[in-house]
Amino acid sequence: MRELKQAILQDGIAIGNDIIKVDMFLNHRIDTGLMFRMGEELAKRFAGEKPDLILTVEASGIALALTTAHAMGDVPVLFAKKAATVVQSPDVAQASVYSFTHKRENIIRADKKYLPQGSRVLIVDDFLSDGQACQGMMALCAQTGCQVIGIGIGIEKGFMPGGKNIRAMGVNIQSLAVVTGIEDGKILLADD
Amino acid sequence: MRELKQAILQDGIAIGNDIIKVDMFLNHRIDTGLMFRMGEELAKRFAGEKPDLILTVEASGIALALTTAHAMGDVPVLFAKKAATVVQSPDVAQASVYSFTHKRENIIRADKKYLPQGSRVLIVDDFLSDGQACQGMMALCAQTGCQVIGIGIGIEKGFMPGGKNIRAMGVNIQSLAVVTGIEDGKILLADD
Repeated sequence: MRELKQAILQDGIAIGNDIIKVDMFLNHRIDTGLMFRMGEELAKRFAGEKPDLILTVEASGIALALTTAHAMGDVPVLFAKKAATVVQSPDVAQASVYSFTHKRENIIRADKKYLPQGSRVLIVDDFLSDGQACQGMMALCAQTGCQVIGIGIGIEKGFMPGGKNIRAMGVNIQSLAVVTGIEDGKILLADD
Repeated sequence: MRELKQAILQDGIAIGNDIIKVDMFLNHRIDTGLMFRMGEELAKRFAGEKPDLILTVEASGIALALTTAHAMGDVPVLFAKKAATVVQSPDVAQASVYSFTHKRENIIRADKKYLPQGSRVLIVDDFLSDGQACQGMMALCAQTGCQVIGIGIGIEKGFMPGGKNIRAMGVNIQSLAVVTGIEDGKILLADD
């Protein structure tokens, strides 16, 4: 997606060999217009799949999940939680996920009643790196008998194994921008 | 807001004397259409204020902040973070916030460069209970010289002191639904 790629090149900051800081427009400050156009683009790419719901994980996946859901006719969003709350249902699906950004293990949880058996689920997240978050969400879906019809991603790190591993399982991943590497502090992007 | 009040009465669950579980449509599963109409309603109520940005805090404030921002002409959103990341800027505004739901203290943080001095900021959150989160966000704004032009809330617990305390400071709080109490497991709502 050209506009996202331009934003990455203009405002993204490369840190070391593998971290891309895009908190100017994606995951701290949100460029609202861009986020809606990203949702529209993901909706187009999965238009034929008619998901019953969109699954993401808090916190930075929520915005793209919501704009995608809106563009698909206001299907519901479910965001998996990382922290147990005092009002949590005892009947949850859960999976262990290592966060590349936060350098720690998280348990992600979703109330099973919001992932009804047989639902067609589109997973959406802002980033795909090593694939831990997506595989965790796939595990939640497997636990409740939901069908993952695809994965929509804002920025995929093509130099990390997540995308390759999950595509090898036969899952359709659509990424709006693919970073192929970082060279001398410059972010390199794949052609569309 | 009638539609939100109906959702609370239909799907909200009272727990004890002070907790309202609305994870069916607001802060776990999201009713996407309702969330957009809530954003439109908040945008109407603050239409004359022309904020430069909308500030919220992760995670469950993000959806309402984004739909409000969209209805106000795609103004940017900034969501304060609860966890330090490995790529965090050293120049952050921060405040300590006690979470009523999670029963723990959080530090919320925002990169100062995304809260430019003199900005007109609309604070948005899904819930207003004891007011800790909103006061934390007001503290972030004070640290960078931003002006809080108002606070937009999904559900206010009118039986808790947050709204009263913050209104006493002269801040315009608009809440789309006000819960006045819980009686025998029934959620009571204020008239519009």
